[in-house]
Amino acid sequence: PESTHKEIQMGALRLPALTSIFTSSSSVRSSPAIFPLKHHLRLPLRRPFSAQSTTEKVVAPELGDGKGKVVDKDKDRVITPRSQDFNAWYLDVIANAELADYGPVRGTMVIRPYGYAIWEAIQEYMNVKFKETGHSNMYFPQFIPYSFIEKEASHVEGFSPELALVTVGGGKELEEKLVVRPTSETIVNHMFTQWIHSYRDLPLMINQWANVTRWEMRTKPFIRTLEFLWQEGHTAHATAEEAEEEAMQMIDVYTKFAYEQAAIPVIAGRKSRVETFAGASTTYTIEAMMGDRKALQAGTSHNLGQNFSRAFGTQFTDENGQRQHVWQTSWAISTRFVGGIIMTHGDDAGLLLPPRLAPVQVIIIPIWKKDNEKAGVLTASSSVKETLQAAGIKVKIDDSDQRTPGWKFNYYEMKGVPLRIEIGPRDVSSGTLVISRRDIPGKQGKVFGISMEPSALVAYVKDKLNEVQSSLLERATTFRDSNIVNVSSYDELKEAIAQGKWARGPWSAGDEEESKVKEETGATIRCFPFEQPEGPKKCLMTGNSADEVAIFAKSY
Amino acid sequence: PESTHKEIQMGALRLPALTSIFTSSSSVRSSPAIFPLKHHLRLPLRRPFSAQSTTEKVVAPELGDGKGKVVDKDKDRVITPRSQDFNAWYLDVIANAELADYGPVRGTMVIRPYGYAIWEAIQEYMNVKFKETGHSNMYFPQFIPYSFIEKEASHVEGFSPELALVTVGGGKELEEKLVVRPTSETIVNHMFTQWIHSYRDLPLMINQWANVTRWEMRTKPFIRTLEFLWQEGHTAHATAEEAEEEAMQMIDVYTKFAYEQAAIPVIAGRKSRVETFAGASTTYTIEAMMGDRKALQAGTSHNLGQNFSRAFGTQFTDENGQRQHVWQTSWAISTRFVGGIIMTHGDDAGLLLPPRLAPVQVIIIPIWKKDNEKAGVLTASSSVKETLQAAGIKVKIDDSDQRTPGWKFNYYEMKGVPLRIEIGPRDVSSGTLVISRRDIPGKQGKVFGISMEPSALVAYVKDKLNEVQSSLLERATTFRDSNIVNVSSYDELKEAIAQGKWARGPWSAGDEEESKVKEETGATIRCFPFEQPEGPKKCLMTGNSADEVAIFAKSY
Repeated sequence: PESTHKEIQMGALRLPALTSIFTSSSSVRSSPAIFPLKHHLRLPLRRPFSAQSTTEKVVAPELGDGKGKVVDKDKDRVITPRSQDFNAWYLDVIANAELADYGPVRGTMVIRPYGYAIWEAIQEYMNVKFKETGHSNMYFPQFIPYSFIEKEASHVEGFSPELALVTVGGGKELEEKLVVRPTSETIVNHMFTQWIHSYRDLPLMINQWANVTRWEMRTKPFIRTLEFLWQEGHTAHATAEEAEEEAMQMIDVYTKFAYEQAAIPVIAGRKSRVETFAGASTTYTIEAMMGDRKALQAGTSHNLGQNFSRAFGTQFTDENGQRQHVWQTSWAISTRFVGGIIMTHGDDAGLLLPPRLAPVQVIIIPIWKKDNEKAGVLTASSSVKETLQAAGIKVKIDDSDQRTPGWKFNYYEMKGVPLRIEIGPRDVSSGTLVISRRDIPGKQGKVFGISMEPSALVAYVKDKLNEVQSSLLERATTFRDSNIVNVSSYDELKEAIAQGKWARGPWSAGDEEESKVKEETGATIRCFPFEQPEGPKKCLMTGNSADEVAIFAKSY
Repeated sequence: PESTHKEIQMGALRLPALTSIFTSSSSVRSSPAIFPLKHHLRLPLRRPFSAQSTTEKVVAPELGDGKGKVVDKDKDRVITPRSQDFNAWYLDVIANAELADYGPVRGTMVIRPYGYAIWEAIQEYMNVKFKETGHSNMYFPQFIPYSFIEKEASHVEGFSPELALVTVGGGKELEEKLVVRPTSETIVNHMFTQWIHSYRDLPLMINQWANVTRWEMRTKPFIRTLEFLWQEGHTAHATAEEAEEEAMQMIDVYTKFAYEQAAIPVIAGRKSRVETFAGASTTYTIEAMMGDRKALQAGTSHNLGQNFSRAFGTQFTDENGQRQHVWQTSWAISTRFVGGIIMTHGDDAGLLLPPRLAPVQVIIIPIWKKDNEKAGVLTASSSVKETLQAAGIKVKIDDSDQRTPGWKFNYYEMKGVPLRIEIGPRDVSSGTLVISRRDIPGKQGKVFGISMEPSALVAYVKDKLNEVQSSLLERATTFRDSNIVNVSSYDELKEAIAQGKWARGPWSAGDEEESKVKEETGATIRCFPFEQPEGPKKCLMTGNSADEVAIFAKSY
């Protein structure tokens, strides 16, 4: 059957726009909007699926092993190679895979259906975990009186430069300006103060899924936008120990999610004092290495101590009748995580999604040349689709006859679909099909003659999905580990950072030295990892004895 | 076994606060916030579950049949009787059942876990239906350039008095002020214009779950708040017919939801021109009758025609190569629906939730007097809980020994839990239990000797839940129908409205006459119902021939 598939790949037709099966809209267009100007200017060059006129040639992206693919050499590449310009590659992937678009207001983002579906997969997993760990969802208003923000000293210092303010409501100037929430600790504490009276009201453990606004100057889709979506957990406890346990529990939930669902081998640890959240006593973080080796803070969990409860008077009567301030935590992950997935797994062919978060895990491409082959191929394809769907696999079929199989192969590779099933006339006769892995290009990733027999097929597909999932994690782990350098002096640190790597070395110096590193190298302490090497250590900067190693890296 | 239960109800202990199993916080407190001042002033009188001191007496609300219940006559009733003051009753239910609280900013609302869980049940159902009908979720930014709002003439007229404006961002006055979305038609069209090119990009069918802001002057929790949660569907089609079909399809989805899930017998129909959404060609609505017989607009679906596509230039190239404006719809339901559920089914005992939307469908109350009875009762209760949970029933157990069974009965009745299971020592010996229906107070709703045998029990409980569901719908339908009066003259209409009822009569008069009715009676045309009586009709106002009857009512 190999020749069949090859032949058909070769004979690609040139037809107008595909009505995408992922979204109702299939075209990528230039945006009148903002973000980096450089990118904006380049956009009109990339409209691979634009359908301005029905006679316009369709250009298939040159992807994968490149063999037998139809490429119009007169046109620009659709996706900038990752190695050539990582940022351009990232923006190209987002545009071409229709993950997001630019909103009309500077720095805002429209999350398109395919991108939103990844966020929904994150939500589905997290929502269950939050409930399992004893949290209830609820919703706080997004408008916060300005005076609330001012109550916690370091909080106002951290957030005031980034605030969006509502000053007019219902046609009138407001007496007190309102902050559009950048995070909800203040309003949460205002309410907790009314709900918490005795130790019996504790622990109080809630979560909300919400939008938040931070007036960022340098924005990038998913990674840093004026408005983004997130969940924010907020808890109050009777003791410092319980709050610490909770903060650790939630960073563990995030870590497990990153490894098992997103296939991202994050490094979990504690932030330095300088990098701690505005208002927290301790911030725990998961740090992910992106494809350009920059670090991405992908989730945080804060032990807030009594900082907010003291500022807001959030007290309870303990078992001895004493009034005490509650101990609190907050923790969040956001749509930024979607950016982390793109930048961890994506390659020159486009997006590459971990099966557990992929909106479409398997794409079926029916292949026929002659009219009398079509019915049989489509029937077999539908039946395979139903089999997989019934087994809980997220599967789609692209039976459009406006695009060639070769075009579709490239398209779904670019969309990052983990597995592709091809079914041609010879497959139908032999009761078999062909499966290709997105993560292994070309023939190596392609297996012929897989039986269509339902139970065998389901088992095979599930196995393959698991293999892709593990292989993505393994690849990312190898990449990460080969790009972390152990350093024992500042010179070694500078050298490692200059090479674009992460530096790990003992650190017991102060905030000033940390700032110096940032100024001189551009790198910051990403975290003091929970996993620490044994034995005595000497601070790479001062030579004094050190308890821990820290990881330094440039970051998003 | 009856005497067992009775005895124990009688012997109620007086103990301090229950740590609620519904939420982490169990106390109802006065709020420093706003909403009707009258209510605000009354709040401190009602703190049924407050636990300021461990020696404070706990007052069980006097509820249900009132027999054998412990009530401290010296204290206020917890919930104002519905018949006495419907509005006070509504606010009492929301406070006592911990559905929502007042936010710090006038007119805002905090949705507490138990209230949010009802919204989650609505979301779960709707989300599936939206996807089944071909829509994808996505997310648009909430900040809309002010100029967008001005583009569609009637849209700006309708919304400009209600806008919240962001004028400062990142410490600087903005060049163009931003509207916090009151609805998203404008920004949706801005984006659709970039995504839609040819007929192949249509239909484009999306939905978003989001918060919206409308600067309302008179607010009421769930019903009308400055910020609320909703879903808004937006679609674009190639033909007027398709858009009309879509608008009708979605009002049907809402109608079905109201009847089958919320047990609310809404009347679906078309809005009058005066009541049509700002920017729509036609608005379809579902109108629900609340317990005070006021109408609640519970969901709307708009055929937008080409109003927004013309304002925003949203065009496509049709199959003949002609440029055409798209035809559009939008449709929404919001957290207001939660208010509708409360005001449709609630009674003097508090909330009454339709089983299909109830966060807890069955509450198990273990009952014991002697220490040696406790273990057996708790073991049996846990095993019943597991049996029901495994069958997909939402079940909780309240085995707290800080409250008496009698107190718990009242508490969960007030919370609107559809079914209560009681398990006492005699039940354990006989392998049976007692089930009470929330919708039928006292003995009539109570059945003894139900077998604990898993398959029998599951079948019985499911049956009972279905019975409660049907009976709520039936009761609400009877109530609705007995409060709609057919009228054939304006005098009859005035009479019906004066009696607090809905008036249904033929109408073909103009906008001016409609305004006159509103001025003189306080009632508006809620809708021209889809279901119309046959035969010739004469307009109740003008005596001219009329094609349709309209429903007039006072409304929220």
